[in-house]
Amino acid sequence: MKSQRISKNVIRRLPRYIRHLDLLTCEGVTRVSSSELGKRMSLTASQIRQDFNCFGGFGQQGYGYNVEELRSKLAAILGMERSRSAIIIGAGNLGRAIIKNFRFGACGVTLRAAFDIGDKREAIGDALSFYDIGELENYLRENPTDIAVLTLPADAADGMAHRLVGAGIRGIWNFTNVELRGIPENVVVENVHFSDSLLALNYYLSKEEK
Amino acid sequence: MKSQRISKNVIRRLPRYIRHLDLLTCEGVTRVSSSELGKRMSLTASQIRQDFNCFGGFGQQGYGYNVEELRSKLAAILGMERSRSAIIIGAGNLGRAIIKNFRFGACGVTLRAAFDIGDKREAIGDALSFYDIGELENYLRENPTDIAVLTLPADAADGMAHRLVGAGIRGIWNFTNVELRGIPENVVVENVHFSDSLLALNYYLSKEEK
Repeated sequence: MKSQRISKNVIRRLPRYIRHLDLLTCEGVTRVSSSELGKRMSLTASQIRQDFNCFGGFGQQGYGYNVEELRSKLAAILGMERSRSAIIIGAGNLGRAIIKNFRFGACGVTLRAAFDIGDKREAIGDALSFYDIGELENYLRENPTDIAVLTLPADAADGMAHRLVGAGIRGIWNFTNVELRGIPENVVVENVHFSDSLLALNYYLSKEEK
Repeated sequence: MKSQRISKNVIRRLPRYIRHLDLLTCEGVTRVSSSELGKRMSLTASQIRQDFNCFGGFGQQGYGYNVEELRSKLAAILGMERSRSAIIIGAGNLGRAIIKNFRFGACGVTLRAAFDIGDKREAIGDALSFYDIGELENYLRENPTDIAVLTLPADAADGMAHRLVGAGIRGIWNFTNVELRGIPENVVVENVHFSDSLLALNYYLSKEEK
């Protein structure tokens, strides 16, 4: 929650670069110019060069970027090769969807355990270690963890976030659509607000109809 | 409203303004200055004024904003009061989580039906009309629909997107983490990439540790 030197918009574009570089690799492309990459991503070549200049620039004027090299540099900046640990709080439909389908490993994160009330244990099956939420503090004492994924009901989000921070969690990935209040500045909160995305879609639909 | 192109970043901030204005209303606050609002949202007062100026500006110098009025103007810009229809394609864990928990109505959207292969019908229960995916084109002919929510497996995403566009869908809310290719320009695609968000969290965690 500190102000950072590199703009959030640049950071948020990096994963998109990585996705497009992966597509290029799949297509057998090993070198790409900023204008070619820009065309695929609906960005201008100058915006791309500007983004990469935030990190010292990666290209050689006139030669374009080596796809594999660029990908690995961006991945390093994003910490994708670092090993982070995570737990997930809430094993309802959304929690289970994330446990079963989301590729944490591709982001450099290992999902280690799920927490909920005991009767949700069966829903998880063998996919992941399951603990009753009462065991949270003990678990975190024995297994220091970087990130907690919040997929519990909205009305429990604020209390749980503070409980997690008290138990040493420093990163919260928040799917509850609640703006968490009073979280210390050294804790990073990343909100996934589905509604922001749907409202943006609405807006652009209306624009198209004009 | 001006018809100039407003940056995506401004559009994406509008839902956040609305969430914070709703919190102010809950707290009984009826008027807020750009600096107070900025403090709550970690934005500068000047950024807020600049954002609102994109739409002609909403405040009166020195008086701050009327919370209710500002909220309703932003909501109108985002089309929250307009009535959009949506269907959801894919009734797995993620689809069910969205059907059961996401408040489409608060975004001005009515979710009308879910599509999947027939044996998923039971998982939906009475929450929503369920159709086998084979009935998609017939349904859309009889029920013109604005938005399709894609919560099906990634490898089926591209084909389904083209099928939907062919059947008249003009907005795609894409949860599949696949970059859809070759979608016509007049179709609006809004991607929800969970990984972008987790990677940003990783990045800011690393920054905090420095």
